[in-house]
Amino acid sequence: MSNEDLHAMRHSLAHITAAAVKRIWPEAKFGVGPVVENGFYYDIDLGTMSISESNFSKIEKEMRKIIAEKQTFERFNMDIDDAIAKMHNENQPYKKELLNDLKRSGTTVAKDMDADELGTIADSDTAIDKVSFYTNGDFTDLCRGPHVANTGDVGAFKLMRVAGAYWRGNEKNSQMQRLYGVAFETQEKLDAHLEQLEQAKLRDHRKLGKELDLYTNSSLVGAGLPLFTPRGTVLRDLVSQYSNQLRQSKGFEKIWTPHITKTDLYEKSGHWAKFGDELFLVTSQETSDKLALKPMNCPHHTQLYVSKPRSYKDMPVRFLETTTDYRDEKTGELGGLNRVRSLTQDDSHVFCRQDQIEEEINNLLSVASELYTSIDMKLRVRLSYRDSSDGYLGDMQLWTSAQEQLKAAVERNGLDFFEQEGEAAFYGPKIDFMATDAIGREHQVATVQLDFVQPERFGLEYTDAEGNVARSVMIHCALLGSIERFLSVFIEHTAGWFPFWLAPEQVRILTINDTVIDYVKEIEAILKDTVLMKPVKYNEVRFTRDDRNESLGKKIKEATSMKVPVQLIVGPRDKDSREVSVRTRSGEEKVSIDHLEDYLKGL
Amino acid sequence: MSNEDLHAMRHSLAHITAAAVKRIWPEAKFGVGPVVENGFYYDIDLGTMSISESNFSKIEKEMRKIIAEKQTFERFNMDIDDAIAKMHNENQPYKKELLNDLKRSGTTVAKDMDADELGTIADSDTAIDKVSFYTNGDFTDLCRGPHVANTGDVGAFKLMRVAGAYWRGNEKNSQMQRLYGVAFETQEKLDAHLEQLEQAKLRDHRKLGKELDLYTNSSLVGAGLPLFTPRGTVLRDLVSQYSNQLRQSKGFEKIWTPHITKTDLYEKSGHWAKFGDELFLVTSQETSDKLALKPMNCPHHTQLYVSKPRSYKDMPVRFLETTTDYRDEKTGELGGLNRVRSLTQDDSHVFCRQDQIEEEINNLLSVASELYTSIDMKLRVRLSYRDSSDGYLGDMQLWTSAQEQLKAAVERNGLDFFEQEGEAAFYGPKIDFMATDAIGREHQVATVQLDFVQPERFGLEYTDAEGNVARSVMIHCALLGSIERFLSVFIEHTAGWFPFWLAPEQVRILTINDTVIDYVKEIEAILKDTVLMKPVKYNEVRFTRDDRNESLGKKIKEATSMKVPVQLIVGPRDKDSREVSVRTRSGEEKVSIDHLEDYLKGL
Repeated sequence: MSNEDLHAMRHSLAHITAAAVKRIWPEAKFGVGPVVENGFYYDIDLGTMSISESNFSKIEKEMRKIIAEKQTFERFNMDIDDAIAKMHNENQPYKKELLNDLKRSGTTVAKDMDADELGTIADSDTAIDKVSFYTNGDFTDLCRGPHVANTGDVGAFKLMRVAGAYWRGNEKNSQMQRLYGVAFETQEKLDAHLEQLEQAKLRDHRKLGKELDLYTNSSLVGAGLPLFTPRGTVLRDLVSQYSNQLRQSKGFEKIWTPHITKTDLYEKSGHWAKFGDELFLVTSQETSDKLALKPMNCPHHTQLYVSKPRSYKDMPVRFLETTTDYRDEKTGELGGLNRVRSLTQDDSHVFCRQDQIEEEINNLLSVASELYTSIDMKLRVRLSYRDSSDGYLGDMQLWTSAQEQLKAAVERNGLDFFEQEGEAAFYGPKIDFMATDAIGREHQVATVQLDFVQPERFGLEYTDAEGNVARSVMIHCALLGSIERFLSVFIEHTAGWFPFWLAPEQVRILTINDTVIDYVKEIEAILKDTVLMKPVKYNEVRFTRDDRNESLGKKIKEATSMKVPVQLIVGPRDKDSREVSVRTRSGEEKVSIDHLEDYLKGL
Repeated sequence: MSNEDLHAMRHSLAHITAAAVKRIWPEAKFGVGPVVENGFYYDIDLGTMSISESNFSKIEKEMRKIIAEKQTFERFNMDIDDAIAKMHNENQPYKKELLNDLKRSGTTVAKDMDADELGTIADSDTAIDKVSFYTNGDFTDLCRGPHVANTGDVGAFKLMRVAGAYWRGNEKNSQMQRLYGVAFETQEKLDAHLEQLEQAKLRDHRKLGKELDLYTNSSLVGAGLPLFTPRGTVLRDLVSQYSNQLRQSKGFEKIWTPHITKTDLYEKSGHWAKFGDELFLVTSQETSDKLALKPMNCPHHTQLYVSKPRSYKDMPVRFLETTTDYRDEKTGELGGLNRVRSLTQDDSHVFCRQDQIEEEINNLLSVASELYTSIDMKLRVRLSYRDSSDGYLGDMQLWTSAQEQLKAAVERNGLDFFEQEGEAAFYGPKIDFMATDAIGREHQVATVQLDFVQPERFGLEYTDAEGNVARSVMIHCALLGSIERFLSVFIEHTAGWFPFWLAPEQVRILTINDTVIDYVKEIEAILKDTVLMKPVKYNEVRFTRDDRNESLGKKIKEATSMKVPVQLIVGPRDKDSREVSVRTRSGEEKVSIDHLEDYLKGL
């Protein structure tokens, strides 16, 4: 089934949901009902009546009736004024409001609203005079379509949950009930999705984050601003170190920039005009400086590039910085590490000559590929090109050459890729990385982007071999993206069973009784000298000792609940034979104390 | 000479300066003339006439005359209303304004003004009715004193510079001229000071920061927000790593907290009431959250402490975090790294039981001592105790015990120390560290502070051996203090000749001609494998190669101007004998290639 067909199917189910709700509660008022990932929702106002999961079977039963009736979806057009009168008569104030907006400007303003939902005939930014409706059975809805032919063609579905949602995403508006469903073309696919959700629930990084003591939140500090415990900080540091090490092997050098800046910087870069109302603003009480928290690092990095003259022989100049950016996400949208206000990027910027693009992209792809392979995530990339429309900045010839160089680099790295026109940023083509996790979900993890605009705006240049001033090309790249988001994905990918090199507590020694304490000290001396070199260099083994007077069973249970990958069980017999019993997820085995270091290095 | 005598001497010189200026320019209007470090200044309004350094000899000549006249300093009191009339008649509007303020409230408000300057008889916060004047020769000044007996007793002095200064530090007021002088009891001491200033000028970290390409500033980013180049970032990272390593050896664990917080956190901690108007405020445009940039980390760290229950067996809990704080310094006061708006602290907090204070302080002192010894800075500590006045929070018995434990720890570490009552913070006693640099200047580098207040405010507790809830003690400590400020001191201490382990570029290979390229590759392979373990572990040698077709002399000159500590000169004869000529600041010597690694590790 094509994406378009799947979309039409899910959208038709939104109508069927509303129709079913209206059959049960005829006084229902409806907001919008768009398609979302894996399904759809409909915003419903039932006054004081509140839908709960206990109502789902009733609604689903009614939906199945409508489906069994194979009602045809019929489209008709209407003058917008007639449509407004119709909605008024039918007591549908939300639809009426949308129509009034549409009449005024041809568009409605709602951040969380799917544009598909608006029943415009003309896709225009100016006032319009006709709108379309779709009818199935006794239910008619303002809608642009398209739909499936009849209600029988909607595959398999399930209502999932209901949640409060403000009309048009604005806290000042009335609160509606958002009824979510998932839908797939076959029952088999729906079952697979539900199974994946079950799996995901067990692996939920918010649950594991608490159980494994990785991070916490404080209502005094605020939502979306997680604080990382010692264990969580080990994860942060090691993944960031890994990313740094990979890039340093390609000539990147670490720099440091502050987290705030005068807004002048963003006026110059152009970000102020585009994103100024999405920034955290910083007020100085001592001066009249206009400042902001940085939401990205490129403008700061340009200031280090221009801090001294550059010659063609110095190029490429490669900067990396792991630093925290701040984005003013709405607090209602924040949960866990997936979406945060403080996001730490393993950011990097290359300033190079045009003829160096392919080699630089090649370097970045090769380390990205190494990283995701080493953590068992399959990588797929999208080459995002410009299309023939206007609105792209930079010379056409530069675009063509750059896109060819991107593709050449992707092919050199043997990456699974697909090309898509019209997906480039306005300032340059890019490569988007998608990684698949252990339960089959695909996550966008990072991008490599070419930028022809900031070099112009900031006057980034170098002296070429002939002594002339030449314009630099800028490449943006983060391997992990945001470390917080990466960890949210990685915790769920591993279900908290981190690879040995990364586990916050790698080894726990469990004693059987106190007669082995001297022998344990010998073991600890070995562990203290054990330094892993792969994939991160100089990674000293992190171990603890549980020598409490408790049963071995209890000790094993506790170590396992903390997902300590290597448990060294030490009893009198181990001491006598100068061995340890190594307990890992793959079983238990005896290892001679003389081979312990090599054993750990081989994990 | 006692500090009080030196103060009186310098203050008398301020009067003599004003008297001399008035002899030369009788229309001069005077502001305030306080004592500052090593000398004094006087704020003067000469209308459109501007004092320049070329006037200094003339003013100094007049000052010497007054000194030779041995004029007695005579004090007299006057009703405040008479004093106001007198100043009005003498056309001294600034003095008149001070007197009017004094009359109203007994105090004047000026951030940059030395309270000594105000001629109050009563040191009171309420309105007063008598003020004092001092006369020497034909010059009379509103003043509280004290002064030397006569103008002959003022030691050796020198006018140093003149700078613009707004009246009472407020940009909206008229601009005056601030005339600075230095003064010491003997000419010898003055000369030593002037020599130190000369030395300091050569070592100025702002000059070296540029020459050695360590950091830059951008007018688009703003004042006091330095950006660190790759070379400067090596310094930042290594000193921070060193500090971390020392503390990790004492059981500290790294944590991570965001740079912003809801102001609720500071309302709870009490910082909001005390410092609320000195914070950078952060405005969310998407929500109504009231946020601020963190100016310190303790409140954030308490939130990790309380994120899970703690037992007496878990104590002490030791957190460390190198993180950037933001303080809203006035931009006029910002220059170089000494005073910045973005200051990165190597911060740490211990949460412990009362009986663990001495051991924890002992740990911190021992690593601080190790750090400053290793970089050749002499450390002296001040034990800052409470006095018998009110205003200290926390139990008296706790204070006494804590102060004894601090002293015991200082003595155990054999540190040069002195004790001072009344210098404690209101929330607990502390230890201040002073380090002396290569040209004899003493810098406050860090403090260890006990805190009895935040544990109360945030409810920091643990379960004691009897199962009861007990209050934790909190210890604040940074070894370097602010990394930016530490670097400003350290760059000047070393004059940019960093110790081998820390130099951004440690080794530069200088070729004599192209016949040695293969041999250079052998040398580079050795350098690549050389990893220093002291004082920072896993410190890979940073080297470059200068194989340009330039003269050796030019190559040496450039490497020396970048203060590269080890220059490896490689010519055909070195290749034949399998040696390198190692050029360091202490001379040149031949080292066999087989011993190169050991040689470098021994530096």
